[in-house]
Amino acid sequence: MRTTDEHALAALSLAPDPVPVELDLRHALGHVTAAAIRAHADSPPFDNSAMDGFAVRWADVRSATADAPVALALMGESRAGVPFAETLVPGRAIRIMTGAPMPAGADTVVPLEVTSADERAVTIREVRSEGAHVRRRAEDARIGDEVIGSGVELSARHLAAAAAVGAARVAVFRSPRVGILSTGDELAPLGATPAPGQIYESNSVLLDGAVRRAGGIPVLLGPVGDRVDDVVAAIRRDDVDLIVTTGGVSVGAYDVIKAALAGRGAEFMTVAMQPGKPQGLGSVDGMPLLCLPGNPVSVAVSFELFVLPVMRAMRGLPQPLAWSVTTAGAAWSSPAGREQFMPVRWEAGSVAPATGLGAGSHLMARLALADGLARVPADVTDVRVGDSLEFRRFSG
Amino acid sequence: MRTTDEHALAALSLAPDPVPVELDLRHALGHVTAAAIRAHADSPPFDNSAMDGFAVRWADVRSATADAPVALALMGESRAGVPFAETLVPGRAIRIMTGAPMPAGADTVVPLEVTSADERAVTIREVRSEGAHVRRRAEDARIGDEVIGSGVELSARHLAAAAAVGAARVAVFRSPRVGILSTGDELAPLGATPAPGQIYESNSVLLDGAVRRAGGIPVLLGPVGDRVDDVVAAIRRDDVDLIVTTGGVSVGAYDVIKAALAGRGAEFMTVAMQPGKPQGLGSVDGMPLLCLPGNPVSVAVSFELFVLPVMRAMRGLPQPLAWSVTTAGAAWSSPAGREQFMPVRWEAGSVAPATGLGAGSHLMARLALADGLARVPADVTDVRVGDSLEFRRFSG
Repeated sequence: MRTTDEHALAALSLAPDPVPVELDLRHALGHVTAAAIRAHADSPPFDNSAMDGFAVRWADVRSATADAPVALALMGESRAGVPFAETLVPGRAIRIMTGAPMPAGADTVVPLEVTSADERAVTIREVRSEGAHVRRRAEDARIGDEVIGSGVELSARHLAAAAAVGAARVAVFRSPRVGILSTGDELAPLGATPAPGQIYESNSVLLDGAVRRAGGIPVLLGPVGDRVDDVVAAIRRDDVDLIVTTGGVSVGAYDVIKAALAGRGAEFMTVAMQPGKPQGLGSVDGMPLLCLPGNPVSVAVSFELFVLPVMRAMRGLPQPLAWSVTTAGAAWSSPAGREQFMPVRWEAGSVAPATGLGAGSHLMARLALADGLARVPADVTDVRVGDSLEFRRFSG
Repeated sequence: MRTTDEHALAALSLAPDPVPVELDLRHALGHVTAAAIRAHADSPPFDNSAMDGFAVRWADVRSATADAPVALALMGESRAGVPFAETLVPGRAIRIMTGAPMPAGADTVVPLEVTSADERAVTIREVRSEGAHVRRRAEDARIGDEVIGSGVELSARHLAAAAAVGAARVAVFRSPRVGILSTGDELAPLGATPAPGQIYESNSVLLDGAVRRAGGIPVLLGPVGDRVDDVVAAIRRDDVDLIVTTGGVSVGAYDVIKAALAGRGAEFMTVAMQPGKPQGLGSVDGMPLLCLPGNPVSVAVSFELFVLPVMRAMRGLPQPLAWSVTTAGAAWSSPAGREQFMPVRWEAGSVAPATGLGAGSHLMARLALADGLARVPADVTDVRVGDSLEFRRFSG
């Protein structure tokens, strides 16, 4: 048996290189930058007022106080978007709005609150300093400056920053398109009435949501029954970058994924973990495939450990994902010789199994109560209250 | 001036009640449940095998050891999705696959690994206990059980749990549709070349992304210039639940939002905060409106403090959002009498201004470097290194 880390590395080696694309800003949310975003223009693009008030020359107003106010005749106004076209004449003032360009000749803004004005003149009762309330051209960013680095996952604020410096299109890595194929004659699709011996299909629902939450685009390729030809037909796609299958990878007589793909580029093996021991992976006709076991909890665990890192690599994000350290708040047992990934609830700094019934890999409803996975080392068979454990929250 | 908390409460009082809708599971990711999700069927729906192996009667195999193995003739097989139709006869065994229904008469599964078998018989070298490796009907969830509570934000695992118990449609609260209207003659739309005195429009880019990240559906209603009629026309919509405007709420002569909406149901006021002092809100012809100032950093701060809580209420999520406590890693100044919301970087447990130039509300490019907001109380004018401060990460 290989270790979990060995299998995660093998999976990662299948990840296609991230594909850079250029997107409009409004479509780039959540994507990772493939190159730094630089300012296409100065921000602000011109000196402008930080306040509603009056643009003046400091030399004219420097002596103004409440006791000895300074009065200046008005010669016009500068509005946001509608600049004042002339030059400020010494001894006069120009009404100015927040964000409006500083008129030529003016160097200081006096806020409305410390003035009285009518149509023709303004009386100034208080001043701060030369250049007060003026936002300088390029003080936020100068043309050519790097505003957002390469490898950054774009938030709403990043997009707005790019917009502010005129970067209408950005180079990012394409979202991975992930084909999802669940297999098994026992699967009744969502909304159908199961025949005797059938169960509701939930793995594609899990993967669909988890792929979305991880920044990918899910493409449902199934479910398909236990027929080799159906599997082979389902994975022959050119509109996905990666295919994740569930079920049919074990030692049973009807393990259809193994039957369809072993010898065509996929390998099947056991991994020293619980749940999720039977796994497969490989590249079939150039398509990277991760073949997960069929039990729902195994699928959830395998997604976190194997699929998510591959998707991160395809998105241009770094590895590895971090585990934090937590404390066991309950006792439970773990198999000898295998790492255990126990779905746990996290509460007040300690964790306890969410399932109440151990790591039972079929307990999907119970999994809804879990916050993440506790990782029990392979040589530990009894987790005791107070033991230190690695913990990671579920990604999706 | 009202306090930030007072204004946040006034905003929250405008939030329309959350609207319950029924959605297909695959469309419910990220929605909040409007009612508990209950099991429509037992999970598992029938006793089934946890292993590939042989279904037997415990009475027939209990003595089996490596030294004294027990041999049983085979009478058929039970596959996942293809149950064995007859009853197990005493003294015989049935080949069984993981997930396949337990045949009538069988009570225990012996895993493949501790057996040898040919077409006609199996030899069993080891047994565990009566009932071993059998998953019991309903041990995960019983029909009618609450699987996911009301008020839960649905993750991929929640959806899979709902699928596993046959809940193909779920009652959730509708995503809020948020109209976004940025205003100002100075705004050049993304991709255009700004005229003299114009700047690139970034507020609608910020709000578009922030609304998406907060679980809402953004609807762009602008930008519009400083014309009252254009504002009035733009907000006359029946396809949004809430409108957020930016700009035009201050004391200037051309504050178009104020000119258009004061007296029609919206109020305009100053809030004791920096940035973001001028604000407006109200209900115009039944449409709730939050009118933010126009400076980009003010918009980012106002979104976190006023828009996000309203959206959470509309989504059925609880209030308030939590602030954590952190330490100032740098010194900076804050205005007297106003709470300051400083965009900061968070590193190793302390925070420092991201902008380097104070809370300048126009420093959008610098805002991209911030991780969240530090909240400086109104009576603090000098933040010193080591001071305790409240901190919250940006939501989007």
